[in-house]
Amino acid sequence: MRSVSIIGIGLTQFGERWDKSLRDLVAEAGIAAVKDAKIVGNEIEAVYGGTMASGRLVGQEHIGALIADQLGLNPLPAHRMEAACASGSVALRNAMMSIIAGEHDVVAVGGVEKMTEVDTAEVGFALGGAGDQETELFHGATFPALYALMAKRHMHEFKTSEEQLAQVAVKNHKNGMNNPFAQFHKEFTIEDVMNSGYVATPLKLLDCSPITDGAAVVIIAETQKAKKMCEQPIEIIGSGQASDTLALASRPNLTELRATKLAAKIAYEKAKVSVKDIDLAEVHDCFSVAEILAIEDLGFFKKGEGGKATEQGKTSMQGEIPINTSGGLKACGHPVGATGVKQVIEIVQQLQGRAEKRQVKGAKIGLTHNVGGSGATCVVHILKHAMGKR
Amino acid sequence: MRSVSIIGIGLTQFGERWDKSLRDLVAEAGIAAVKDAKIVGNEIEAVYGGTMASGRLVGQEHIGALIADQLGLNPLPAHRMEAACASGSVALRNAMMSIIAGEHDVVAVGGVEKMTEVDTAEVGFALGGAGDQETELFHGATFPALYALMAKRHMHEFKTSEEQLAQVAVKNHKNGMNNPFAQFHKEFTIEDVMNSGYVATPLKLLDCSPITDGAAVVIIAETQKAKKMCEQPIEIIGSGQASDTLALASRPNLTELRATKLAAKIAYEKAKVSVKDIDLAEVHDCFSVAEILAIEDLGFFKKGEGGKATEQGKTSMQGEIPINTSGGLKACGHPVGATGVKQVIEIVQQLQGRAEKRQVKGAKIGLTHNVGGSGATCVVHILKHAMGKR
Repeated sequence: MRSVSIIGIGLTQFGERWDKSLRDLVAEAGIAAVKDAKIVGNEIEAVYGGTMASGRLVGQEHIGALIADQLGLNPLPAHRMEAACASGSVALRNAMMSIIAGEHDVVAVGGVEKMTEVDTAEVGFALGGAGDQETELFHGATFPALYALMAKRHMHEFKTSEEQLAQVAVKNHKNGMNNPFAQFHKEFTIEDVMNSGYVATPLKLLDCSPITDGAAVVIIAETQKAKKMCEQPIEIIGSGQASDTLALASRPNLTELRATKLAAKIAYEKAKVSVKDIDLAEVHDCFSVAEILAIEDLGFFKKGEGGKATEQGKTSMQGEIPINTSGGLKACGHPVGATGVKQVIEIVQQLQGRAEKRQVKGAKIGLTHNVGGSGATCVVHILKHAMGKR
Repeated sequence: MRSVSIIGIGLTQFGERWDKSLRDLVAEAGIAAVKDAKIVGNEIEAVYGGTMASGRLVGQEHIGALIADQLGLNPLPAHRMEAACASGSVALRNAMMSIIAGEHDVVAVGGVEKMTEVDTAEVGFALGGAGDQETELFHGATFPALYALMAKRHMHEFKTSEEQLAQVAVKNHKNGMNNPFAQFHKEFTIEDVMNSGYVATPLKLLDCSPITDGAAVVIIAETQKAKKMCEQPIEIIGSGQASDTLALASRPNLTELRATKLAAKIAYEKAKVSVKDIDLAEVHDCFSVAEILAIEDLGFFKKGEGGKATEQGKTSMQGEIPINTSGGLKACGHPVGATGVKQVIEIVQQLQGRAEKRQVKGAKIGLTHNVGGSGATCVVHILKHAMGKR
């Protein structure tokens, strides 16, 4: 059975990139990834890209072909995947399958979103398409509202407090201070978060991830080939994906994401590791409550204890399991299609010992968790150094 | 090496389906496909969907999860592919790779587009996103204009006439008379086409495929398993995909689609067949000139002779190589994401001997050709009866 490893990574600066168009961002990250992989580019056999809403945000579809075109990779087969905020991870999974199937040996996988060219209301409507347009967005339920419902229920059932939610934001902004690619380099206190305005009770402005431009690209290769091409290939030892109902109201329980639990179960089984083997994780903190749900659903903490664990510092850089060392979606920003690929890049840097001030000492196995919509798609990847180093 | 066969097919009526929403269309085709495969549904392990512009046309993204949800297939992994008008074929290719990789044994692949809920101008802008938004659509070059440039050049270089272009429309509308799922059941004469108004000289209204709602679903399985599940599995014996520049102006030649030529070359090689072995083909006739380009680039006729061959009836039901027996995009309609899957369904019906009045006698090997945009993506599939029947 063939397996897949990452041999190169490339990121743009995340933020309000009024200096660069969607295609410029793709090129910036793509060139960085090719350079990092120390290849010239003609080893690449296919292109996969994840983008959510480029049709509404910049009037451009056909993003796979655009990426191939912009990177000078015509006439390679080029694919765009869309699974809302999980688009990047779904693109990576399908690129992996093309390698495991023997169709390709080396593939470029990108994620990109250009969100700041339209006004915030239009971004809200575009992102609303990640949920159930007919039964949610049409009636005014935008994403902060949907996650607020989950937060309310979690608070009701488990006595999770608004201060505990705020701790997620405080921690991730602290981590983001050490990530040069993050949108925000600014620390916040619990009071700052608590005093920021409500967007949808109980979620406040500083509980929400921002609107961001950015791109992320990884070069992946069949593992035996990767070992010859690269000094520190990082193998994807397990990968799982699951779906759930689009609409929140169709689910039996608001305090867990079933797709996270199932995707994680599949990924752990494929990787032949247990939750205890995971040294660090990048999880989908689109809202502070989403990180609480994630660290419970992934099995790091028991259901209902995520808020308390966060408050106790168990997910901090020095904690039991550092979560979102990159700064997460909260501080890095959330260029939707790019996020899943960016999460993988953070884990690669950690496992290669290249995370500088964010380095988790002795990190051997890392996990990424990427959610589409309010949980209708979830992808979990588990990564490990392919040379057994570190 | 594992291979993939089709075990069930389902189509909606194509047309102005004001009675059904996008999700209703998906359900209609999905249920038909499951029924045709004579399965109950719980054999399916993943969902792939192709849709181009649902974000702009109905405000809904996250179409993979929507299809899984609507068909009661949660929590299966659900993927949406987008490659403009080739979205359906790219979805099928990636679903195939997931089977060849051993990730799944049975997968549902759908294509859908709901285009009639917004006005025609908005459809034009949404479809324009298949080309180069910055260098084409922004300056007013919609798709009829881009294909008109190709037609003009073909006429200039090869003396192709407007009457020859019109023959494509006449033939495909004639074929469509026998397809109950087609949007139009109306025959046209050369005079009708020639007298229809110019949309973009030399292309007239009746040279253009229409705006259409519709969905198409196939159930695919690993071939050994397919042979146990199904009496007449149709194997995909070859598949090729290639890309080209998004913008027409970046290409060296307007009278061929390089992506078609390369995708066909790969597909023929994989299938170990030559162009002479192909008994019939569904090609991408979004505009009449596109069929002329396709039958040349696929190798059925020499470059420049497509118009003449069409005029001579060589591509008719009784000709050397029947093209678009379904009626093509021209008469069936072109619900963008569904088209590539619909093409495959026509070939399956032909190879199974179920095409009724459209039946090509003795058809053993068929080909589908699906183009994204003005040729920035092309996918070619070659199909054959897996039981060696017929």
